[in-house]
Amino acid sequence: MSNRPDTPLLDRVESPADLKRLSDDELAQLAHELRAETISAVSETGGHLGAGLGVVELTVALHAVFDAPRDKIIWDVSHQSYPHKILTGRRDRIRTLRQKGGLSGFTKRSESPFDPFGAAHSSTSISAALGFAVARDLGGACDTGHGDAIAVIGDGAMSAGMAFEAMNNAGALNKRLIVILNDNEMSIAPPVGALSSYLSRLYAGEPFQEFKAAAKGAVSLLPEPFQEGARRAKDMLKGLAVGGTLFEELGFSYVGPIDGHDIEQLLPVLRTVRQRATGPILLHVLTKKGKGYPPAEAASDGGHATAKFDPATGKQKKAPGNAPSYTSVFGRALVEHAARDERIVAVTAAMSGGTGLNQFQERYPSRCFDVGIAEQHAVTFSAGMAAGGLRPFCALYSTFLQRGYDQVVHDVAIQRLPVRFAIDRAGLVGADGATHAGSFDIAFLANLPGFVVMAAADEAELVHMIATAAAHDEGPIAFRYPRGEGEGVDLPERGQTLEIGKGRIIEEGQRVAILSYGARLGEARRAAEALAARGITPTIADARFAKPLDRELILSLAARHEVLLTIEEGAVGGFGSHVAQLLAEEGVFDTGLKYRSMMLPDIFIDQASPADMYAVAGLGAEQIEARVLDLLEIAQIKGKRA
Amino acid sequence: MSNRPDTPLLDRVESPADLKRLSDDELAQLAHELRAETISAVSETGGHLGAGLGVVELTVALHAVFDAPRDKIIWDVSHQSYPHKILTGRRDRIRTLRQKGGLSGFTKRSESPFDPFGAAHSSTSISAALGFAVARDLGGACDTGHGDAIAVIGDGAMSAGMAFEAMNNAGALNKRLIVILNDNEMSIAPPVGALSSYLSRLYAGEPFQEFKAAAKGAVSLLPEPFQEGARRAKDMLKGLAVGGTLFEELGFSYVGPIDGHDIEQLLPVLRTVRQRATGPILLHVLTKKGKGYPPAEAASDGGHATAKFDPATGKQKKAPGNAPSYTSVFGRALVEHAARDERIVAVTAAMSGGTGLNQFQERYPSRCFDVGIAEQHAVTFSAGMAAGGLRPFCALYSTFLQRGYDQVVHDVAIQRLPVRFAIDRAGLVGADGATHAGSFDIAFLANLPGFVVMAAADEAELVHMIATAAAHDEGPIAFRYPRGEGEGVDLPERGQTLEIGKGRIIEEGQRVAILSYGARLGEARRAAEALAARGITPTIADARFAKPLDRELILSLAARHEVLLTIEEGAVGGFGSHVAQLLAEEGVFDTGLKYRSMMLPDIFIDQASPADMYAVAGLGAEQIEARVLDLLEIAQIKGKRA
Repeated sequence: MSNRPDTPLLDRVESPADLKRLSDDELAQLAHELRAETISAVSETGGHLGAGLGVVELTVALHAVFDAPRDKIIWDVSHQSYPHKILTGRRDRIRTLRQKGGLSGFTKRSESPFDPFGAAHSSTSISAALGFAVARDLGGACDTGHGDAIAVIGDGAMSAGMAFEAMNNAGALNKRLIVILNDNEMSIAPPVGALSSYLSRLYAGEPFQEFKAAAKGAVSLLPEPFQEGARRAKDMLKGLAVGGTLFEELGFSYVGPIDGHDIEQLLPVLRTVRQRATGPILLHVLTKKGKGYPPAEAASDGGHATAKFDPATGKQKKAPGNAPSYTSVFGRALVEHAARDERIVAVTAAMSGGTGLNQFQERYPSRCFDVGIAEQHAVTFSAGMAAGGLRPFCALYSTFLQRGYDQVVHDVAIQRLPVRFAIDRAGLVGADGATHAGSFDIAFLANLPGFVVMAAADEAELVHMIATAAAHDEGPIAFRYPRGEGEGVDLPERGQTLEIGKGRIIEEGQRVAILSYGARLGEARRAAEALAARGITPTIADARFAKPLDRELILSLAARHEVLLTIEEGAVGGFGSHVAQLLAEEGVFDTGLKYRSMMLPDIFIDQASPADMYAVAGLGAEQIEARVLDLLEIAQIKGKRA
Repeated sequence: MSNRPDTPLLDRVESPADLKRLSDDELAQLAHELRAETISAVSETGGHLGAGLGVVELTVALHAVFDAPRDKIIWDVSHQSYPHKILTGRRDRIRTLRQKGGLSGFTKRSESPFDPFGAAHSSTSISAALGFAVARDLGGACDTGHGDAIAVIGDGAMSAGMAFEAMNNAGALNKRLIVILNDNEMSIAPPVGALSSYLSRLYAGEPFQEFKAAAKGAVSLLPEPFQEGARRAKDMLKGLAVGGTLFEELGFSYVGPIDGHDIEQLLPVLRTVRQRATGPILLHVLTKKGKGYPPAEAASDGGHATAKFDPATGKQKKAPGNAPSYTSVFGRALVEHAARDERIVAVTAAMSGGTGLNQFQERYPSRCFDVGIAEQHAVTFSAGMAAGGLRPFCALYSTFLQRGYDQVVHDVAIQRLPVRFAIDRAGLVGADGATHAGSFDIAFLANLPGFVVMAAADEAELVHMIATAAAHDEGPIAFRYPRGEGEGVDLPERGQTLEIGKGRIIEEGQRVAILSYGARLGEARRAAEALAARGITPTIADARFAKPLDRELILSLAARHEVLLTIEEGAVGGFGSHVAQLLAEEGVFDTGLKYRSMMLPDIFIDQASPADMYAVAGLGAEQIEARVLDLLEIAQIKGKRA
């Protein structure tokens, strides 16, 4: 506790209502304390630091001016919600952020009434806020006491199509709605896209505009006759060349840009907005990611995400890795393929670092495309390049591939275009929790005609699957791999092209066959080791392919064993379901087979370490072992009875 | 043949190369003939007439100026591609449009090299065109002889997020790319959204701008010094207030608006664009849907889609319906619920007619939201309204729900928000073919924790499911129903609330149980009738729910029959897979059960009548009957052997 910052004002804040009693000067002081508390908390927990530091003043000002939870403050993505959590009754648990059983790293409806709409994936906030605005305005029996609907969205998130769809709809509906564009010229990677350039032009070539720009926008909300001060400010600004034309053309009143770290600007502008707004308003706020904490400000990503760290130095306390991460293995292998094949290009949706494409980006900048937070476009753009004769690798997290699902079906699968999908963060992902789990891609890809669907059992397998995908020009192909470190196996000099639709036997055994699809293979092997001590030697096989299935292997395993157990890091409808369908069609069940599928259970699993999450899911080595014992025991009892 | 139009010029055109030999006047004449031929063909086949008639002149001009297939002309959605098909070597088959074995109603890569990228769902063309532009510019070993990349996209399609994502990326990449905005102020329904208002303002208050506007845009592409004529035109236009600022702010050069029915404007502007373009260009073309055919022009939807018709009168030759369509049953029932419950609101994505919400729209305009072609926003906006205490029905076609999949997972399922999904066009849909098949929703919804997933066996069941959904506030709920007419059953006065997770026995029989999920129930009953003639009386059951499963019903059916056969209008991973997983977990397979799942096969099925498509899929009554006989025969043989 001795290292904790001194926060006398913050200590008196139990809920946003307490902010109403503070003077503007005290609110500025409160912001300082809130920043210190945020840094201190994240130094203990790790997490997304930079985003929260960028909105400390905005958070204080919003809660001072508006009345949450009656007013709905919706944080887009919500990495930036830690200061909001501290102010809204969760300070006592803030040092449990992203831990098992602790606070979520995101806003979450079940966590607090001050979180009216949970977030994690980007660009949902305007749609949700518009929903609240409609619910408020329908009134009558629908009046559930809603006040203002306020979406706080970053410039990166604003470039996603869904934000545009929401703006387009909100501009037309013309309901009172407040969108705060938190413009820090940075999402996770440096900003990309034409919208980003446009936003820069809104204040380029001007000295930092401070209050005059704020006044310019706010004045537009005032009725005639203007107050004298406002009129003077407006006159002062005549001839200012830039403005929020793009947003105005979409039906929004544009206010800004204002300095998002200056409480003296934020408070009067927000008060004016609150008093005067009738239709949709976009308030353009300039902030700096990582503001007020030099190590974060200095980082190229604004201190986006961090491990636990020393608050004095910013030095992270990361445990040293034992094996390279799957992500880095992918990044390196793709660069090697690209050196030999200039048709290989790569696509990322604002995640060049997260997907390991930063190396590729440096070596082959003209062949690497960061399209921004735009998974729909990423997929169809890849399809277009494939149709043009290139060999695109579209690298996305499993959970974000959901954003491009229709494009996968309609533009890639139906046209049989050879887009290579590198699916990172497959399965359970740890601290980011349920919203980021990659649970559904096996099911939603393996039922698409013509798709080849693979999962890597370890990092060496990943290298082979990259080679396999690079060589596969006949149609779409996908390979998934988990977050984090590999198994520590030797990496091959060069990936081998795998035979499509062929799995492999890892260990020959008897009675029980464990058929693994993906990275649970290590757990299956550990289960087998434990079983060996009891004299049970299961056959262990790696399916490699969920599609096409290795019929020969599966039917042979079924024929030669009492028990066939599949295991995968995905929800029902995926690998196990395809195997069951094959066994049914082949009549294997007609005469009986003890067949079971181990898969993700039918729940959304809260954040914890990946290992803890897999324990909750029942997919760890001990649980595999217990399952095998259970199945054999039943067999023995029945055997005795017969 | 005697009724066919006189088309002397068109008769000499076998490929676009032939257009290069025609004078501008002859091209204008060719457009007239092409329009007549299009009307004549669609009068025989039915199909999407209005869109094609709107781009007849544009199609002629594009093929006269550019060199397809080296230049890639990509028609967004591609309802408007019939004239293009006629000019690109497919005139001899144009009267097979949308028929079994005939031409697709959409562009299709496998159909012609002049279709570089297939389409059907909206707003994909800019992404695809950008892919071709990149493939072209990478050059070297990648040079596959690509020329210009040209996307032709409607104003409705431009409002979808994915088009914005593509524009944002294209504006930043700054490659030569031509986007033609075909602005007819109409997609299928009247236009919605702020972008639509913006486009209207681009030419509002001006007399129709004809050549002067064209010249204004085109001049911006010319290098200094301007040619004298162009300079004069530019001077003439000084002070013109409107312009394509929004597109320019996204990094595009804006040219237009020009009259898309005036070949004399189109040809010079396209020639200038072709000669001078260096970066991305947006050419804004004004057209009229249904142009040149009075019955289509007069229709409120511009003659969007039509049955076969008499070309002289426009009178459609639709077979009279026997039963109300599922869509109309949905529309009527929702209006009745809305009258009793003012929390009920409805959301459509530019399909108020297609989804049957037009009645609701008329009766409750403030409670019905057409968000435009924006499924991502539609889903999260619905989630926001649900969080605000409303009872939203989000009505989408199955195939378009794919566009909002991540939002279904992230904003609805994880938050357990009670959004009601009315999923129309589930299963195979007929003339629109593979791109519009609703094949995957059972799988991709039923594996989401907390979802209730239903399918209606007939139109009366649909009424009950609407009532069930309206009453279900505990979490998300979806119900699917097919395209077309119901079974002709009596409709209940008022829908009953079904018990969640409970199916029903339709007919008690023996030996074989057919467990149907959805609208194949009628086929199953017809199969049972045929089997009765052979002395076989299967049990017929209607599962109603894919999630939660009726465990009791399923286990009881498995225990009491030799054969359990499931049937559904969906791909693998759906209902049958969930049933198999239950049977495996319960140990039913351990001792043997003849279990089979009939589902959509692992192919994309080309257009035909729905009945023909289901025959290809193997899901008709005769095929169910054959399957049962086959399964019983095997059982009998084995029985004899034992």
